[in-house]
Amino acid sequence: MKTLQTALSKDKISALFKEARFGIEKESQRVTLDGTLAATDHPNTLGSRNFHPSIQTDFSETQMELITPVANSPREVLEHLAAIHEVALRSMNKDEMLWPLSMPPILPEKDEEIIIAKLERFEDVLYRRYLARSYGKRKQMVSGIHYNFEFSPEMIERLYAEQTDIIDFETFKTEVYLKVSRNYLRYRWFITYLLGASPLSEEGYFTGCDDEVPDEPVRSIRNSRFGYTNHDDVFVSYRSIQAYVEEIEALVDQGVMSEDKEFYSPVRLRGGKKVSDLKECGVQYIEVRNIDNDPFAPYGITEKNIELIQLFLMYMLWLDNQDADKDQLLHDGDRLNNQVALERPLSQTAMKAEGLELLQGMKEMAEAVKLSDHLKELIAEVATSFAEPAKTLAGQLMTRVETGQSQHDIALEKGREYYEKAWAKPYQLAGFRDMELSTQILMFDSMQMGVDVEVIDRHDQFLKLTYGKQVEYVKNGNMTSRDTYIVPLLMANKTATKKVLGRAGFQVPGGKEFAAMEEALANYGYFAERGIVIKPKSTNYGIGITIFKDGASIEDYQAGLQIAFKEDTEVLVEEFLPGTEYRFFVINGHVKAILLRIPANVTGDGKRTIAQLVAEKNQDPLRGTHHRSPLEIIQLGDLEKLMLKEQGYTVEDILPEGSIVYLRENSNVSTGGDSIDITDDFDESYKQIAIEAVEALGAKISGIDLIIPDKTIPAIRDSRAYGIIEANFNPAMHMHAYPFAGKGRRLTQDVLHLLFPELPH
Amino acid sequence: MKTLQTALSKDKISALFKEARFGIEKESQRVTLDGTLAATDHPNTLGSRNFHPSIQTDFSETQMELITPVANSPREVLEHLAAIHEVALRSMNKDEMLWPLSMPPILPEKDEEIIIAKLERFEDVLYRRYLARSYGKRKQMVSGIHYNFEFSPEMIERLYAEQTDIIDFETFKTEVYLKVSRNYLRYRWFITYLLGASPLSEEGYFTGCDDEVPDEPVRSIRNSRFGYTNHDDVFVSYRSIQAYVEEIEALVDQGVMSEDKEFYSPVRLRGGKKVSDLKECGVQYIEVRNIDNDPFAPYGITEKNIELIQLFLMYMLWLDNQDADKDQLLHDGDRLNNQVALERPLSQTAMKAEGLELLQGMKEMAEAVKLSDHLKELIAEVATSFAEPAKTLAGQLMTRVETGQSQHDIALEKGREYYEKAWAKPYQLAGFRDMELSTQILMFDSMQMGVDVEVIDRHDQFLKLTYGKQVEYVKNGNMTSRDTYIVPLLMANKTATKKVLGRAGFQVPGGKEFAAMEEALANYGYFAERGIVIKPKSTNYGIGITIFKDGASIEDYQAGLQIAFKEDTEVLVEEFLPGTEYRFFVINGHVKAILLRIPANVTGDGKRTIAQLVAEKNQDPLRGTHHRSPLEIIQLGDLEKLMLKEQGYTVEDILPEGSIVYLRENSNVSTGGDSIDITDDFDESYKQIAIEAVEALGAKISGIDLIIPDKTIPAIRDSRAYGIIEANFNPAMHMHAYPFAGKGRRLTQDVLHLLFPELPH
Repeated sequence: MKTLQTALSKDKISALFKEARFGIEKESQRVTLDGTLAATDHPNTLGSRNFHPSIQTDFSETQMELITPVANSPREVLEHLAAIHEVALRSMNKDEMLWPLSMPPILPEKDEEIIIAKLERFEDVLYRRYLARSYGKRKQMVSGIHYNFEFSPEMIERLYAEQTDIIDFETFKTEVYLKVSRNYLRYRWFITYLLGASPLSEEGYFTGCDDEVPDEPVRSIRNSRFGYTNHDDVFVSYRSIQAYVEEIEALVDQGVMSEDKEFYSPVRLRGGKKVSDLKECGVQYIEVRNIDNDPFAPYGITEKNIELIQLFLMYMLWLDNQDADKDQLLHDGDRLNNQVALERPLSQTAMKAEGLELLQGMKEMAEAVKLSDHLKELIAEVATSFAEPAKTLAGQLMTRVETGQSQHDIALEKGREYYEKAWAKPYQLAGFRDMELSTQILMFDSMQMGVDVEVIDRHDQFLKLTYGKQVEYVKNGNMTSRDTYIVPLLMANKTATKKVLGRAGFQVPGGKEFAAMEEALANYGYFAERGIVIKPKSTNYGIGITIFKDGASIEDYQAGLQIAFKEDTEVLVEEFLPGTEYRFFVINGHVKAILLRIPANVTGDGKRTIAQLVAEKNQDPLRGTHHRSPLEIIQLGDLEKLMLKEQGYTVEDILPEGSIVYLRENSNVSTGGDSIDITDDFDESYKQIAIEAVEALGAKISGIDLIIPDKTIPAIRDSRAYGIIEANFNPAMHMHAYPFAGKGRRLTQDVLHLLFPELPH
Repeated sequence: MKTLQTALSKDKISALFKEARFGIEKESQRVTLDGTLAATDHPNTLGSRNFHPSIQTDFSETQMELITPVANSPREVLEHLAAIHEVALRSMNKDEMLWPLSMPPILPEKDEEIIIAKLERFEDVLYRRYLARSYGKRKQMVSGIHYNFEFSPEMIERLYAEQTDIIDFETFKTEVYLKVSRNYLRYRWFITYLLGASPLSEEGYFTGCDDEVPDEPVRSIRNSRFGYTNHDDVFVSYRSIQAYVEEIEALVDQGVMSEDKEFYSPVRLRGGKKVSDLKECGVQYIEVRNIDNDPFAPYGITEKNIELIQLFLMYMLWLDNQDADKDQLLHDGDRLNNQVALERPLSQTAMKAEGLELLQGMKEMAEAVKLSDHLKELIAEVATSFAEPAKTLAGQLMTRVETGQSQHDIALEKGREYYEKAWAKPYQLAGFRDMELSTQILMFDSMQMGVDVEVIDRHDQFLKLTYGKQVEYVKNGNMTSRDTYIVPLLMANKTATKKVLGRAGFQVPGGKEFAAMEEALANYGYFAERGIVIKPKSTNYGIGITIFKDGASIEDYQAGLQIAFKEDTEVLVEEFLPGTEYRFFVINGHVKAILLRIPANVTGDGKRTIAQLVAEKNQDPLRGTHHRSPLEIIQLGDLEKLMLKEQGYTVEDILPEGSIVYLRENSNVSTGGDSIDITDDFDESYKQIAIEAVEALGAKISGIDLIIPDKTIPAIRDSRAYGIIEANFNPAMHMHAYPFAGKGRRLTQDVLHLLFPELPH
């Protein structure tokens, strides 16, 4: 079947050959920060395991199983795995972390202290009790990675079109996956050699009941006959889909296995829900199950090794061994794999020659199908691991152990490192740190609450959320189907917003709109003798705005107009409303948060200079840049220096104790301002006005800005106790979640409840 | 009360003194194009007169009453009046027009041929029967303009704050309007002199039953004692609101008048619904009723004269005559007005001295309150009308009559001129011609169907529509509350749209998105050997797009990418779908229109050059520029000339008979393309796919573009019989309403029915 290689090398096929779909499932034990198996239940913030799409428990209550959605590239699947890791870690008790090894930490002496997962469905518990009896609880505590892999269906279609041997497409596709699986089983020692990462067991893992124990250290206890395998009497052929299905069914019928899913093969054929469906559906993808957790990777596997496994699977298809005996391949594979798994980690492998041969073949394939330079370099790099066993994962672990650090200590060190990393910026979400912060927080909450998240367009902050059968699209965190098309358009138009609110009886600043200087000047009298704000119609971050709190002379008025007309062809002159501005965040008829924003500032201590005080304030982990933190770094640029100068200071001045100095006129968080949550410190009357105003605009989600002269005086709708200056249709949520002071408000969760009313509270 | 003038002159008051609110009601007789009173019923396209806010009938079935909404300037009220005129004219039989004079056209000899308005409520009919008996049908056929006027309430508030005589604000406000009304009644001869425009009656208007007839010509029959006035025994005082209300009530009680509304005073006090409400509500505004229809103004009154009346009303407040006897003012006013009304139109008025005195006073007021130069010029211009009576409206009419043209012929000529103007561009709406065409058509339909229209933001195409109690906001003609916020965001993102449609099982072009040239080149194989389209992710009018219908070499591919990357940082490479593109317009689950667009073209006749053919095609009244016509003028620019050159032509070549030459590659209507409606010529299967695709996107209104290789073959959802290339969230509607060929589709009406399900069909 050299013809297969020829076909795969054709441009129109090779391009698709490089494409694939990926899904990763990864188990880890939940432990305390000192490496003791956690005694707590699965975190209840993660909702019910009955449906949670990405965070489950496997055998024991402590064994978390993290499941990515299907992804289209190694990068993408790792991003999801990273995000799910952070959600899991930040949902656990603050003194717990994930054990980074496949081999479990030191287990309790008594078996009954290893708690079987507390699942609701009784049959799930029964199955685990059976496993405990059949294999022993300790063996079930071993963790690892399952790697689901599907070739591009279009590639298989095109391959199918190139041949005439097989008439039915589904049969052809199944044959492709059968070939890959058989070869994978035959050559999987290659993966065990490179990625095996379970050289040692912890004390008490093997017990007196074990007939025999491995001679540690080895490359992979988990992948050896001492690991997580079926009993010896289980053999299933991959020569045809019929054989595969029938032999598994027979083993279950004979009682050798309790269910299909007890078939612990390193490669499972997948399609439909049960093994018996395969005959009907054909093979849709395969599940590779022999990957040890990589303790050196924060998420148990690196992008490079995801690529390596893909390359290896591609080669398993490419490989020209049509004439080999199909069952013999499996027997050889088991033997060779067990042999490599039990080799000393730092020794040369007996399979080196075959390994280099495989690499040579992969290199030829890489040339023939025009793989990227990046993947060619990866092949070259792997070759060096055959020259230097210390470069393999087991090798790296044992190199450290030989310098005196125990495997347990290495695991502790790495586990804590990943724990610290997950908590360092709790407002961000690993894998998606380039996205808008409100979107990252919404994604975190979705994943935590068991809502499935798909990024439809990353650059555009466009998400697809699925809960049960309900699908909702969300853009920028709170642009949803719950609001109507016209409402944000109304809110985007300041004049229209004021008209609607004013007619509904709310207080809005009076004013006029001008398209020409002459017209604006002719109306000076209208604004004479009262405080005014002159601004471009489409304001942006306060640019072009002039405020005359006590009214303006005709000259001042003209100067202000000139500034505004520089920014826009239309200018608004509005009545100035005295008071403090508050952001009311309304969701579905409730005020969920009220925020006060104050300009960038520092408070003196009589010792340090302003520059030093700013530097210290900037140490706050909530402060960052480019809107990827809830607060921004305070700058000391020209504007800030000018502002200081006007107050008689330079940055080198020492500020008296307790005295506050402001570095900015405007209170925007984006220019270093502080955000202060005061939701609980507000009279109900103001909340009612905010709710009713948002309702008058027809919005479900809005951040509405009220100017309030004295918030201790209850408001009346038709009074000057407040004025509404703006309603925002895509209000920032992150600043409420992580305010500078006051209580954080998880508005993203409220958005999710608005979208999915059936989501449990 | 010199203090009043002092107060009005203060900057903060004078600015507001110039502001006012206006509303105009105008009656006109519906006549045929030869000036005969129409024998038809009120047009049924105008819906029910039970609720129609802007088009009603007054006394007779032929007497249309056009009612503007409240407007904030003379310009704005005239715009609405213009629009309502066009709606009325274009809703009438094509051989009918509006009679431009206050005096009716030649009336039928027999009174019973003057048909009383066929209103549904019996009491309305009874009232008209009473009027016919009490005044005679002929007198009730006189038409005119009612001018509703309200000062800025804030101005009155500020005036109120400047004085101490009156303690209660509502009383103060009522006193303001009482003063203006009394003075208006006293000096209204001034308006009759300038704007009186009913010098002559038509034959048969005065009958043998009349005791006495005027000595025609006069300035205004309508404003004289021979006109539309109450019987002599009606006098109502304006000395106080109590007197006004009680005296009207007494007249009704005594049976002198049948109802409040029979009080035909030249100024009515308004507030609440009935006269009796005035005591409770106070006066809110006044209704000036002595304005004759101006036959020289397309809409019965000019902007200048609306301003003049405003100026006059301002002066009636300004005027310092506190000590005059309040009832005597009214008696004097009636006498003087009747006298002026019955003067010869081309003679000097006996009131010239008082007129010039009034103008001098207005000039002083203009200086004191700093009126614009424009208004000062208006005062000066009016002064010349006192020197030259031929400049008054009646004077202008009589000047023409003296040259031999009858009043009837003048009316016919002007009526036909306004009729032609209304029909010249039936896709536009007078008063709003600067707005987007789809919005103009929607406004037309709204006004026709009796939906109240308010322009919230003109530049932003933002409308408020009200039907009964239901309010809907609409932007750009079809951005409404019926669609959700997220749907247009989804459609705006081409990648997201394709993902959603693709997963729902629709045919969309396959493809990939690239952010870097290198990445795109690495994927060449994916696109090798098939037709592709390379385009910037955010395309705009086809810029940066390259199409390779039969696939591209790697060099061509790279060249296409370079062009696209010049326009955007992200580039899409998509499968090319062969076939013809059709726009399916879906509203609320129905395909309401299907349009084929073909590139700018001309068909030869063997005689004329291409340039001549283009010039002729451009004569089509549907063609215009700047998207204010349903089709655009075909240009003969560089692109068109290049396109001709490629086909071996120059613009001076004579095209063989029947041969078609295309002047553009793209089929956009905006570059001179033709639009062809083929809604009725399409297999149901395609309509079903368009409906289901729009539903999959969650949209209520969408223009979805399908590529169809052969529309005679019915489509199957999961087939290559079609491909969806785009879904538009603000699709143009005007090109469907007025296509180049095929039937026009009034999508704007469908939008209105979607918004207001209770609107009659």
